[in-house]
Amino acid sequence: VWGLNNLYIVNLNFYLYQIQFADQKQEFNKRPTKIGRRSLSRSISQSSTDSYSSAASYTDSSDDETSPRDKQQKNSKGNGDFCIKNIKQADFGRREVEIAEQEMPALMALRKRAQGEKPLAGAKIVGCTHITAQTAVLMETLAALGAQCRWAACNIYSTQNEVAAALAENSYSVFAWKGESEDDFWWCIDRCVNVEGWQPNMILDDGGDLTHWIYKKYPNMFKKIKGIVEESVTGVHRLYQLSKAGKLCVPAMNVNDSVTKQKFDNLYCCRESILDGLKRTTDVMFGGKQVVVCGYGEVGKGCCAALKAMGSIVYVTEIDPICALQACMDGFRLVKLNEVIRQADIVITCTGNKNVVTREHLDRMKNGCIVCNMGHSNTEIDVASLRTPELTWERVRSQVDHVIWPDGKRIVLLAEGRLLNLSCSTVPTFVLSITATTQALAMIELYNAPEGRYKQDVYLLPKKMDEYVASLHLPTFDAHLTELSDEQAKYLGLNKNGPFKPNYYR
Amino acid sequence: VWGLNNLYIVNLNFYLYQIQFADQKQEFNKRPTKIGRRSLSRSISQSSTDSYSSAASYTDSSDDETSPRDKQQKNSKGNGDFCIKNIKQADFGRREVEIAEQEMPALMALRKRAQGEKPLAGAKIVGCTHITAQTAVLMETLAALGAQCRWAACNIYSTQNEVAAALAENSYSVFAWKGESEDDFWWCIDRCVNVEGWQPNMILDDGGDLTHWIYKKYPNMFKKIKGIVEESVTGVHRLYQLSKAGKLCVPAMNVNDSVTKQKFDNLYCCRESILDGLKRTTDVMFGGKQVVVCGYGEVGKGCCAALKAMGSIVYVTEIDPICALQACMDGFRLVKLNEVIRQADIVITCTGNKNVVTREHLDRMKNGCIVCNMGHSNTEIDVASLRTPELTWERVRSQVDHVIWPDGKRIVLLAEGRLLNLSCSTVPTFVLSITATTQALAMIELYNAPEGRYKQDVYLLPKKMDEYVASLHLPTFDAHLTELSDEQAKYLGLNKNGPFKPNYYR
Amino acid sequence: VWGLNNLYIVNLNFYLYQIQFADQKQEFNKRPTKIGRRSLSRSISQSSTDSYSSAASYTDSSDDETSPRDKQQKNSKGNGDFCIKNIKQADFGRREVEIAEQEMPALMALRKRAQGEKPLAGAKIVGCTHITAQTAVLMETLAALGAQCRWAACNIYSTQNEVAAALAENSYSVFAWKGESEDDFWWCIDRCVNVEGWQPNMILDDGGDLTHWIYKKYPNMFKKIKGIVEESVTGVHRLYQLSKAGKLCVPAMNVNDSVTKQKFDNLYCCRESILDGLKRTTDVMFGGKQVVVCGYGEVGKGCCAALKAMGSIVYVTEIDPICALQACMDGFRLVKLNEVIRQADIVITCTGNKNVVTREHLDRMKNGCIVCNMGHSNTEIDVASLRTPELTWERVRSQVDHVIWPDGKRIVLLAEGRLLNLSCSTVPTFVLSITATTQALAMIELYNAPEGRYKQDVYLLPKKMDEYVASLHLPTFDAHLTELSDEQAKYLGLNKNGPFKPNYYR
Amino acid sequence: VWGLNNLYIVNLNFYLYQIQFADQKQEFNKRPTKIGRRSLSRSISQSSTDSYSSAASYTDSSDDETSPRDKQQKNSKGNGDFCIKNIKQADFGRREVEIAEQEMPALMALRKRAQGEKPLAGAKIVGCTHITAQTAVLMETLAALGAQCRWAACNIYSTQNEVAAALAENSYSVFAWKGESEDDFWWCIDRCVNVEGWQPNMILDDGGDLTHWIYKKYPNMFKKIKGIVEESVTGVHRLYQLSKAGKLCVPAMNVNDSVTKQKFDNLYCCRESILDGLKRTTDVMFGGKQVVVCGYGEVGKGCCAALKAMGSIVYVTEIDPICALQACMDGFRLVKLNEVIRQADIVITCTGNKNVVTREHLDRMKNGCIVCNMGHSNTEIDVASLRTPELTWERVRSQVDHVIWPDGKRIVLLAEGRLLNLSCSTVPTFVLSITATTQALAMIELYNAPEGRYKQDVYLLPKKMDEYVASLHLPTFDAHLTELSDEQAKYLGLNKNGPFKPNYYR
Repeated sequence: VWGLNNLYIVNLNFYLYQIQFADQKQEFNKRPTKIGRRSLSRSISQSSTDSYSSAASYTDSSDDETSPRDKQQKNSKGNGDFCIKNIKQADFGRREVEIAEQEMPALMALRKRAQGEKPLAGAKIVGCTHITAQTAVLMETLAALGAQCRWAACNIYSTQNEVAAALAENSYSVFAWKGESEDDFWWCIDRCVNVEGWQPNMILDDGGDLTHWIYKKYPNMFKKIKGIVEESVTGVHRLYQLSKAGKLCVPAMNVNDSVTKQKFDNLYCCRESILDGLKRTTDVMFGGKQVVVCGYGEVGKGCCAALKAMGSIVYVTEIDPICALQACMDGFRLVKLNEVIRQADIVITCTGNKNVVTREHLDRMKNGCIVCNMGHSNTEIDVASLRTPELTWERVRSQVDHVIWPDGKRIVLLAEGRLLNLSCSTVPTFVLSITATTQALAMIELYNAPEGRYKQDVYLLPKKMDEYVASLHLPTFDAHLTELSDEQAKYLGLNKNGPFKPNYYR
Repeated sequence: VWGLNNLYIVNLNFYLYQIQFADQKQEFNKRPTKIGRRSLSRSISQSSTDSYSSAASYTDSSDDETSPRDKQQKNSKGNGDFCIKNIKQADFGRREVEIAEQEMPALMALRKRAQGEKPLAGAKIVGCTHITAQTAVLMETLAALGAQCRWAACNIYSTQNEVAAALAENSYSVFAWKGESEDDFWWCIDRCVNVEGWQPNMILDDGGDLTHWIYKKYPNMFKKIKGIVEESVTGVHRLYQLSKAGKLCVPAMNVNDSVTKQKFDNLYCCRESILDGLKRTTDVMFGGKQVVVCGYGEVGKGCCAALKAMGSIVYVTEIDPICALQACMDGFRLVKLNEVIRQADIVITCTGNKNVVTREHLDRMKNGCIVCNMGHSNTEIDVASLRTPELTWERVRSQVDHVIWPDGKRIVLLAEGRLLNLSCSTVPTFVLSITATTQALAMIELYNAPEGRYKQDVYLLPKKMDEYVASLHLPTFDAHLTELSDEQAKYLGLNKNGPFKPNYYR
Repeated sequence: VWGLNNLYIVNLNFYLYQIQFADQKQEFNKRPTKIGRRSLSRSISQSSTDSYSSAASYTDSSDDETSPRDKQQKNSKGNGDFCIKNIKQADFGRREVEIAEQEMPALMALRKRAQGEKPLAGAKIVGCTHITAQTAVLMETLAALGAQCRWAACNIYSTQNEVAAALAENSYSVFAWKGESEDDFWWCIDRCVNVEGWQPNMILDDGGDLTHWIYKKYPNMFKKIKGIVEESVTGVHRLYQLSKAGKLCVPAMNVNDSVTKQKFDNLYCCRESILDGLKRTTDVMFGGKQVVVCGYGEVGKGCCAALKAMGSIVYVTEIDPICALQACMDGFRLVKLNEVIRQADIVITCTGNKNVVTREHLDRMKNGCIVCNMGHSNTEIDVASLRTPELTWERVRSQVDHVIWPDGKRIVLLAEGRLLNLSCSTVPTFVLSITATTQALAMIELYNAPEGRYKQDVYLLPKKMDEYVASLHLPTFDAHLTELSDEQAKYLGLNKNGPFKPNYYR
Repeated sequence: VWGLNNLYIVNLNFYLYQIQFADQKQEFNKRPTKIGRRSLSRSISQSSTDSYSSAASYTDSSDDETSPRDKQQKNSKGNGDFCIKNIKQADFGRREVEIAEQEMPALMALRKRAQGEKPLAGAKIVGCTHITAQTAVLMETLAALGAQCRWAACNIYSTQNEVAAALAENSYSVFAWKGESEDDFWWCIDRCVNVEGWQPNMILDDGGDLTHWIYKKYPNMFKKIKGIVEESVTGVHRLYQLSKAGKLCVPAMNVNDSVTKQKFDNLYCCRESILDGLKRTTDVMFGGKQVVVCGYGEVGKGCCAALKAMGSIVYVTEIDPICALQACMDGFRLVKLNEVIRQADIVITCTGNKNVVTREHLDRMKNGCIVCNMGHSNTEIDVASLRTPELTWERVRSQVDHVIWPDGKRIVLLAEGRLLNLSCSTVPTFVLSITATTQALAMIELYNAPEGRYKQDVYLLPKKMDEYVASLHLPTFDAHLTELSDEQAKYLGLNKNGPFKPNYYR
């Protein structure tokens, strides 16, 4: 079953390459066919309910309590094939989209090229992703390349209503709003798929819920579908399971494990978002603070680098000797959490593991210690252990709780232990651009691939395409790549246009 | 006249030590005594109208439009000697105060000592500062030391209403709310000073407006006043002018130029707030961005260090060869703004000068360039030059304007050229704690000084007190100071307890 | 043929994973059997003649011109089965060995364990490596584990005579001195192998010359040899060629590509040695210098990080878009060499490529520009193009040449374009310790492996052994590794003792 | 007496501004007039015997034991008015001078200007400084400006013999060699001063020994002398004492306390030389090392920044709360030496104090700990306490001693506790250039000053000249200074050409 059981699969960290998913015994096709609202709610992917913040949401103070499903709205062209919060927010949303366009140079470059050829002409894409300004740029790029799109949200909290409005105003069939119920969630997905006279031939998914829905409800649709592009760890894992079970009916592209995503999302994004997330929630001064970072994978490396640079004193915990030795060489004291827990001002988890910060640790922390999670869904801090009668919880700001011990000691818990970077900071558009471009290229590749190039399996993008995505992002930095001379290329045994790295390079 | 003319006196930068205030020709005592609301509005200090943001204000969504002056409120003890927005917000405000207390260890230490002696017993302090959680900690510390306090805001925008409520609930006579009119501003100050049966004997001022008001309205009060403690550059400048003109009636302490403030406020605060201010307003990714920082004084040094650490490529402009050479040795290309203006992603001014970024520069910037000011009031960027018919202004978020050129180019202007760190980021409580502690110690010193120690002049705190303030902040870092042995002290010719630096050390 | 043709195989850089060795057409067994001295000199591996410096060699001022081959020496125990420069230098060499022991904690730990068991009892190891203090620690560790050792140098310049003396004094059969002729080189190797009554059963090689000699001269010896441990890129490449050609007679361990070597040698070593190499040769000040680093692989990353940290302004050139994007995100301007060549103070090559710095570039450099190579043998800078009549070469210090243009312009060329870190700086013992430990463990593994575990092929150490090597080095940093709980290990699907990384992790 | 008593006056650190020289009770004029060699040896300034290394000296292997005083040498022009080691080394020395010229752009710029005017025409300068390549550039610049020069060494070890030869070859009257006896030292000085038919009218001194000699032996010479330029702390202190005692006969320029020297020498030089000094002596790897830096003045700041950047974990000790708080904000744990002494890999003193590292500390250090001094002459580490019978000293390399405890523990003591940066690393020429330029400008100023501008007192260079020196060094970095517009200058109340800083700025 694609149920709750198989959801603690996460990315962001090296530990996870080895995950064996031992607990996942139920199979996909055993899922009961009749499900009420309650059982539906159990089948939604966990990533669909992660809380999520964005700059734009700060401005969203609409107090209209009517459900979008109960409203009838039309855009200025009279089109009403969408379901969103409020079409009147379109102007504001459009501005957010335009801001995002400036940081997504590669997609804009693809649009320019599309003026000549339309590589997605005829494509009917059904998508299910976060509905944000960045997604809007992707969607409008796919359209510029020739595709028709229908879209739902992959997360019940993450929709930027203004952006959804801007898309609807431009006559995209969007079905999404911030704060959907779980019933709404599946209703929206169904509205994307189940249309008279329109049948999708491509899927773009983030988390696998859309794919799952079609498998469950409209398995025949796969006859016309040419492929799936999936971004998330969770969704990719589901696809590999399907493939293993011989049930994958179409080729699928695993965008999550492309080099550009791995190399850039984790290290560079976290380097920026750890500072942003901590500041926005706590206004803490970094200078001189003693910080423990649990885990020295890419995420931990990014957090450590940023905090050290801002004058914090950083300690690292690790289980893997190789990463541990890197932490040492990079100038961090490698400790066990117990050794420094009493003196820590901030504790950050980046392990991909569970219960890294236990109640015992929390009991020993000093007054005012800030605790947050940059690594894994919501398992790293044993938040459940704090839900006991003797402790008082006090919500002091959005995403900030004080947990108060009987002696008055307060621990500052951020985002209730969920991902700080999703909940409390924004993600740089530029980094999202890398992933979005990879998605668009994967779409083009799958849609145009000659019969037989791809089988019913899960594929990684070839290294060369990773390199192409990277090269499309260089002009943003006014960066000038050097070209190999013929003589040099021969000497190195490389093609002048790449690929420059072996396929196993990560 | 203490009018608008003499307001472009600023701190934050080395340039300014030489400011000669050439434009200030009007004299203090020429001020007309009868002023209407309009002329009042011209006499308010500029710092009183700088925009100002704080975390707490995000949560302030009260839509009550009634003026506090028209409301009758009482706290839970039945006390009504205050005028604030809404006494019901006291609980939330109290929480903010408690959070601040944790980052203001020195004041809390002073409170502990005050349990034995009350060095401010009998002190009647009238204060005029920003009304924030940090100020509340100061005010309640002064009270713990024995003082009675009445307080108004020094800025019409900066009051945290919840904090004012928390103070009022604790029976402090606070007269302040966010969004005062200028008439309100002076009315509040007057309510602090003009009370039956209570006359202040100490002044704590930030900007000089309170001092000015007493000079103008109640000059006789100075007979009982033992001294003034002033924090701001503007206020200190006013005091020096009074002193020069022979009109200063009481001793005054210049807290602004204490070592701890200069050494910590500028460098360390700006190192943190430049990142925070840019992120909160624009969500910009720092990695790989080309940034020009104009001015390499302490503020510029802080900005450059933070941005370099986060992966930006930083260029510096300077007029002073010594700071220029420091920039070179620190690894920054020293350029003229013209040379790099076309390639800049972000331009930050930190000079204390005027028109450092001109319309000509703005015309040549590339699309999407972010422009902001960390240095001086609002003079560094020639914002006025952008108010021309061919340019369109578009407010895209709070404190963020797009200025749009006829060809579609957009410049992202933050805080309309006012101080980014005041307008768009929070200031670390810990750094404010240093200044607040200095204020408290200056209060104690002036109030207890024997007759004759201080004349009617402006004084700097002795180096030893600076060192004492610093030492009170070390425990926060669990930092352990080394003590000189007798032999070492003799060898160095120093007293074991300091001062360790010459008085001219800055 | 193991001749000059197959020597441009190098490590140190990502480019090189793709090298296809297109030029290598001659086969091993076509080598003529009778070779005179001259042809011998052509067959020596290039790494054997790289120049090499070490701290100890500074003190080596012995002017004795007699060839060691013509001397008869005995150590204090009367043993004379060695051939070195001067047995009297043993005390000094012993001190250097003792200093090295302190930075090689893992080998010392192995020795302690060896007091109980002797995993190399019966092993007769013939070795051919650099003869340095670090090698001495390795050799004496192998002996402590039970092995008998005979050793020659893999490089005609790199022997520390004092260390060789210290080994000889301890009755190790060492045949090596600094400044061997090529005839000496092979004579020494032969003296290790060709002994009456003693036949090696293990080979430890660095560059493949020893292996080659046995293949050529004593192929029957392989019947008793259990395996080869090879460290260098060159030697590993030779082994893979043998394997491919079906001519490898025994199992071989490829130590060069172990994770610990790749992850630590390149990045961390170069981070330190680039500064050291530049200072020792030129005393250049780093602050404010404009430096171009060609190549942003691990070596380039290390160089860039160090120079940026010391206040240099660093530009990067790259051919690979992915590394290029990393350089951008890390805060370096990505340029073509041509664009910045005129303003560069220092140019450093780290590409693994050839002719990266051409005569044209050299012609355009400014007076005093320093040029050096951290990447590849001696191909990266086109030094040959500087050997023209109009240019004057002036040797100003050891390893430092001024190349003087007709107009008086001088370029400062270091180590004649050979590897700066080998020629002009020392390599941190600690990093060598990682490799040496891996060699020792590979020895133990091969020697004790049950029949059939290893075939006649080239093997990489399993990830688990990499992790073991790393863990042995953690105590040096007083670093404390965290252990997974049973629950966590189950959750992650990992064994509590590792391996923690997939085998493809690099 | 200018004897040993007054020698612990040092620079490099803020502590020292307060030194009161309590022990110096003897007066200058009480010095006995007849002194034998032994008493002479006691009167030499301590800085004259500090050990000193330079790159060039590595190549100096001349074994000629004849005293230069016993040789008769002539240069190629037949001139023999000098006394140096070996005139044949002139070519090598000339090359070193030419290398230095490239990093001393300001002096070279002065030479160019001197082609028109000769501001030192008629000047007869007698100098006493380190005789290094950098000094040669200064001396030849003074000559280019019109002066005649005679020169001796201010330190018995620091002369680069090759450079002295190059100067002699160019007919400069130099009297200096490496390894002078103390008698030689004074003899050389006397040879500079006591010449028939030539009498100096300007003094350039470093340490005050030359000035002292003239005071003692030829007091009448001061009638013709127009001024003294003194660089060292020691010499400046002597001058202030003379001035205080009313015995200073001519104006003197204190170059030591010029802004450019203070701001650049300490921070930037030490940032580079700490790494260089440690590497050249110990080849230690910095990554992951635990380092204690005692003192967080400018020197300590430079050391900490460099080591942190290279991956060391740095702890700081301080006595002054203000510097302590800076260390905290900069991200260093502030500790007492006792707390971390057991875990330290490296201990560095930068305090200006005495006995900062005591025998007790040394007893508790772990095996292999490196101890060195970057701060003060040779007082900071209590080296004397290590000269006890139970400890064994072993000289392992030049400037490196192992001190061995009875249990076998070894401490690695560098330069016997004297200054590491003088003894074991080179000082960047560029930074010396700043001081040398200041000396040259001070010379010009004093020599050309109209009667009465300077009295018989000690002067600091005006801020404007500091700024001029800085500006002469900017072209090296291709740095472009911004100029104030008229409007801006007026606004700031500054002259467009500076000075830009108040005189009290340091």
